[in-house]
Amino acid sequence: MDLLINKIIAKQNPTVVGLDPQWDFIPDEIKQKYISDDRPTLDEICKAVLEFNKRIISAICSIVPAVKPNCAFYEQLGWRGMKVLHETIEFAISKGLYVIADGKRNDIGSTMKSYANAYIGETVIDNLTFRAFPADALTVNAYLGSDGIIPTTDICEGLDKDIFVLVKTSNPSSGEFQDKDLRLGHIPVYKHVALMCKKWGQDLLGHYNYSSIGIVVGATYPEQLKQLRDMLPNTFFLVPGYGAQGGSIEDIRYAFSSSGLGAIINSSRAIMCAYKKYPDLSFDEACFKEVSKMKKDILSVIGRVG
Amino acid sequence: MDLLINKIIAKQNPTVVGLDPQWDFIPDEIKQKYISDDRPTLDEICKAVLEFNKRIISAICSIVPAVKPNCAFYEQLGWRGMKVLHETIEFAISKGLYVIADGKRNDIGSTMKSYANAYIGETVIDNLTFRAFPADALTVNAYLGSDGIIPTTDICEGLDKDIFVLVKTSNPSSGEFQDKDLRLGHIPVYKHVALMCKKWGQDLLGHYNYSSIGIVVGATYPEQLKQLRDMLPNTFFLVPGYGAQGGSIEDIRYAFSSSGLGAIINSSRAIMCAYKKYPDLSFDEACFKEVSKMKKDILSVIGRVG
Repeated sequence: MDLLINKIIAKQNPTVVGLDPQWDFIPDEIKQKYISDDRPTLDEICKAVLEFNKRIISAICSIVPAVKPNCAFYEQLGWRGMKVLHETIEFAISKGLYVIADGKRNDIGSTMKSYANAYIGETVIDNLTFRAFPADALTVNAYLGSDGIIPTTDICEGLDKDIFVLVKTSNPSSGEFQDKDLRLGHIPVYKHVALMCKKWGQDLLGHYNYSSIGIVVGATYPEQLKQLRDMLPNTFFLVPGYGAQGGSIEDIRYAFSSSGLGAIINSSRAIMCAYKKYPDLSFDEACFKEVSKMKKDILSVIGRVG
Repeated sequence: MDLLINKIIAKQNPTVVGLDPQWDFIPDEIKQKYISDDRPTLDEICKAVLEFNKRIISAICSIVPAVKPNCAFYEQLGWRGMKVLHETIEFAISKGLYVIADGKRNDIGSTMKSYANAYIGETVIDNLTFRAFPADALTVNAYLGSDGIIPTTDICEGLDKDIFVLVKTSNPSSGEFQDKDLRLGHIPVYKHVALMCKKWGQDLLGHYNYSSIGIVVGATYPEQLKQLRDMLPNTFFLVPGYGAQGGSIEDIRYAFSSSGLGAIINSSRAIMCAYKKYPDLSFDEACFKEVSKMKKDILSVIGRVG
């Protein structure tokens, strides 16, 4: 997790911007540049999506350490959309950002290894080595157990890459499975998953004493956030659900350690659609303003980072 | 699930062939056709992978009702690999096969909807409607609860498409979470997930009284398979783990109802690599022989289908 933490400290900003390019989010000025008539082609749509992402990245890269494209919004555009995902990741890396591919991938053995290679490792075929989607981290779903996590750990260790495992997600129904109490141990499922993440990561500690196996914990469940922070002092938290989904600034303070490390807070729609909130500003200025506001809000409760 | 069941009955064969094109599986005769020297390009590799898939599909389509490409093996080849996935799905559909995209996707709300649109629905942008990866079914991970399943159900209902939810997976470590007993109800996590699947699917029953929400249950856990079959009479099972992973023909009989319906058994490596087992046969003949053997083995325990 060192690469991410270094960027967070340098920018004094533990936030990550979601790049979830829904078509309604893209401003007319960008659409009009690529789309000539009523019935756009998929190529035209993909060009507009890529520019949307690049504009956001350029607007925020001086102040934000990381971005998080969610794979679903690229997959719905087919293989051309996956090309946009690749180009978005490459552009973000070139701007000095840490990139979390939010794919929530899960499988076992050589299949999980293929996912890990695709997003945080390398694909090697005969004498050809390449990076399919060259991100720094991948979100992962651990329902399949160790068989779905261990295939990623040598990549995390060898290449200084990370995964973030879903533990307690931010959505309203997350409790349907995650909150069920287990008979042995008397802990809910999500805590059991969290303890497994601790174990998987115990030999993968970096310079700041955080392991390469981070976890996803929603800002919408502050009590759980607080308990998990105490339980897993060496685990970095990726925290969605701040803002639009209902997590407040008071809620997310629990995600951080006393030194202001330990978590990165995600915001997606508020940044992507900031231009709608500030009609007097340019698209780029609106992104920057909203992300600056978020940074200020977070620093107001955690002081400084590191 | 009617489309799948009709094909299974017509071919009297409840099997699905996994299309997981690992490079080592592809025979030299196909590689040599596209790859000229020691250092293949990614375009050449993708051409060989697509031909490998097409050869398998052509060899088996007269006897098998369905194929199941696992997305991981395409994603590791980047966006060009996703193009191969698209073309593989289209080719399989053109040959009359039912296609299960094995993506184990999961997310919430509009994001999950995007995944569902990508694989079993349609993407609609302004006046453009298209199918990103035009499969009939998608495998899904339900760790996020109803928020991750409900966005798929109107597609299942409206377009006669299906999902298969991971319940009890075939891998050795699947019990780490899935087998943990819950305090309330005294059932393991996987049974709780199974009961949720029953509920999600109760209004989505088709002609054969099976719902559009199927489940994944490994052949490697026959006792659980048996219990789940009794618990969920209206749920179709996708059963991996037969053969190489250890599930025997005696084990998988529990997946079926007394009429021989209710399940489809997956085989991947045994079919894809059949040419290694039968060096005297052509690639196509070897595929056909192995898949015929599997059909015969299964029918020997279930009699006939439907």
